[in-house]
Amino acid sequence: MFNKLDQQFLQKCFSLAIQARGFTSPNPLVGAVLVKDDKIIGEGLHYGAGLPHAEVNAINAALGTEIEGSTLYCNLEPCCHTNKRTPPCTDLIIAAGIKRVVISNIDPNPFVQNKGVKKLIENGIDVSIGELEHQGASLNRIFFKNMHQKLPYVTLKMACSLDGRICLENGTSKWITSPLSRQHVHQIRLEHDAILVGINTFLTDAPSLNTRDDDNKVIKENKKIIFGDMTKLLPEHHHKICTNDWILIHTGCSSFSCPREIKIYHFDHFERSLLKLLKALYVDGIKSVLVEGGQKVFSSFIDARLFDDVFLFYAPIFLGNGKSNYMNKNISTIDACRGMKIVEIKSIENNFVVHLNQE
Amino acid sequence: MFNKLDQQFLQKCFSLAIQARGFTSPNPLVGAVLVKDDKIIGEGLHYGAGLPHAEVNAINAALGTEIEGSTLYCNLEPCCHTNKRTPPCTDLIIAAGIKRVVISNIDPNPFVQNKGVKKLIENGIDVSIGELEHQGASLNRIFFKNMHQKLPYVTLKMACSLDGRICLENGTSKWITSPLSRQHVHQIRLEHDAILVGINTFLTDAPSLNTRDDDNKVIKENKKIIFGDMTKLLPEHHHKICTNDWILIHTGCSSFSCPREIKIYHFDHFERSLLKLLKALYVDGIKSVLVEGGQKVFSSFIDARLFDDVFLFYAPIFLGNGKSNYMNKNISTIDACRGMKIVEIKSIENNFVVHLNQE
Repeated sequence: MFNKLDQQFLQKCFSLAIQARGFTSPNPLVGAVLVKDDKIIGEGLHYGAGLPHAEVNAINAALGTEIEGSTLYCNLEPCCHTNKRTPPCTDLIIAAGIKRVVISNIDPNPFVQNKGVKKLIENGIDVSIGELEHQGASLNRIFFKNMHQKLPYVTLKMACSLDGRICLENGTSKWITSPLSRQHVHQIRLEHDAILVGINTFLTDAPSLNTRDDDNKVIKENKKIIFGDMTKLLPEHHHKICTNDWILIHTGCSSFSCPREIKIYHFDHFERSLLKLLKALYVDGIKSVLVEGGQKVFSSFIDARLFDDVFLFYAPIFLGNGKSNYMNKNISTIDACRGMKIVEIKSIENNFVVHLNQE
Repeated sequence: MFNKLDQQFLQKCFSLAIQARGFTSPNPLVGAVLVKDDKIIGEGLHYGAGLPHAEVNAINAALGTEIEGSTLYCNLEPCCHTNKRTPPCTDLIIAAGIKRVVISNIDPNPFVQNKGVKKLIENGIDVSIGELEHQGASLNRIFFKNMHQKLPYVTLKMACSLDGRICLENGTSKWITSPLSRQHVHQIRLEHDAILVGINTFLTDAPSLNTRDDDNKVIKENKKIIFGDMTKLLPEHHHKICTNDWILIHTGCSSFSCPREIKIYHFDHFERSLLKLLKALYVDGIKSVLVEGGQKVFSSFIDARLFDDVFLFYAPIFLGNGKSNYMNKNISTIDACRGMKIVEIKSIENNFVVHLNQE
């Protein structure tokens, strides 16, 4: 079914796809290469919603060469539906006379799922499915969760000392981890639509909640979500919270209205609102959320088991006082806390990051 | 000065030497191979104080072959002094007609230091020094610290959750980390003469304070040191503390006398006594100490910067309450806590261990 070059060309698709990392939401990351006589005659990727699909870009790049009889590699099943801004890729593939299509993953979008493949086969095209499937699913883990669960992908991130402290008693938290660790955080921010922090973290740290490159230049304005009792906000904060990048999640019984036209959700109870909140954000177009603390917000997501990934950045210091990354006074057995799996531990100069997910 | 086979034969010395790991104190780990025409004709190691040196065992192993004109590889400088239980190795090397000696490290013992080499050279033997020097110093880091500082080598070990907790509020600490992590701790115990715990850890956890193999069989009875207010001991504990493996360090103003003939040190003040304690233990023949907590003891060694290595074992859980691995209420700036370097991070199934030392 697969020949030995298939893997190589699918790897090329992945490396094309990932160039648009962080900019295709709500769409998946897709790369495509067109191959004739074992040579690439065209390549392309999907740059973002409303822009041409990877297959279209690959075929366009090959115009002027003999496309007929070529093989198309694409990490995701080509689309066949018309209820969107771009025409179906299957039609173009058929019209171009492509004889074989190799894909890693079936598109979990119910409008496409297996239907794209079916249409290609009905038109006499040889289709190979499933090579490097696991790698493809990992690349599009956000999109796959979105399609399967209708929920945003949730990543939790904290920076702490070896004794798990995220700040000193006096509130100082800048900086526990190294500049290189913090650059690494921006790589994670890039992948997410929104960054969520608790109201206390917002008030104490005044985080910028955007994605910056290694030269500190803003490369993406993420949606910025503040979670907690919004009556704590001062007029100076209302001034800062002025674009539709901001979303306020007000919890508690007291009423709150923002002087500006900012999206506000209101939930009665902090902890119990998490799943409702994620559902609301999803409907609102937010397909991935990076939760950056503080202690109360982080602990709530851990306790509710409403997370996909956890990244803990550690510095080689002991702080000995101040808030811990996690707090729960009700735990009485160690085994009640199990359920996480270490995915990877990575050294970052004299820091390290532990990547975990649910078992 | 070195030929390309030298490294290979010195590596062989290291792998011989390490077979006696944990059993040579106060002596270093030493391996030796005797080589003629690029072939090993004899090999040996030092098994422990009072037993023959590695060089002697290597030469004895070669008896019956033509030793004259051979090369002796040994990770440490051969001894030349007589104020000990075994005769000087240099005399034997000279008498055997060995023509070249290759060593990694000069012996830091002032009775030997450079004198062994000098004697060999004076007797017409070609001596090469310093190949794989760093690896040799690492192998004998305990012995080197002993000789240079007249202090025991100090290793701190703690097992904790991702939020740095070593137990729950109710005292439960068994088990945070996995069986495989705990086996790893026994590898560390093996290397140390003594294991030290605070009185509270002793009372709560009743640790065995010995070294066991993977089948839980005792392979070494380490010296067992309890540190703190010994008046907390109950009669049942006095019953357990009955061999000369035990050392009690009583701190505080109240008087304490043990009903049995156990070594007791008395210091007025817990934190301020650490350096005095280490000096006393060294004089008493304890060349390496593994400190296994609890919080107060661990924190005191960290704060006094009286440690060589730190091993922190982490399990992928958050406990949310109970004691932290470290406590210090007086830290007011993050930078005041710097000064440790990550040596290595190692995955142990679904746990990991961070090895640190001082910067």
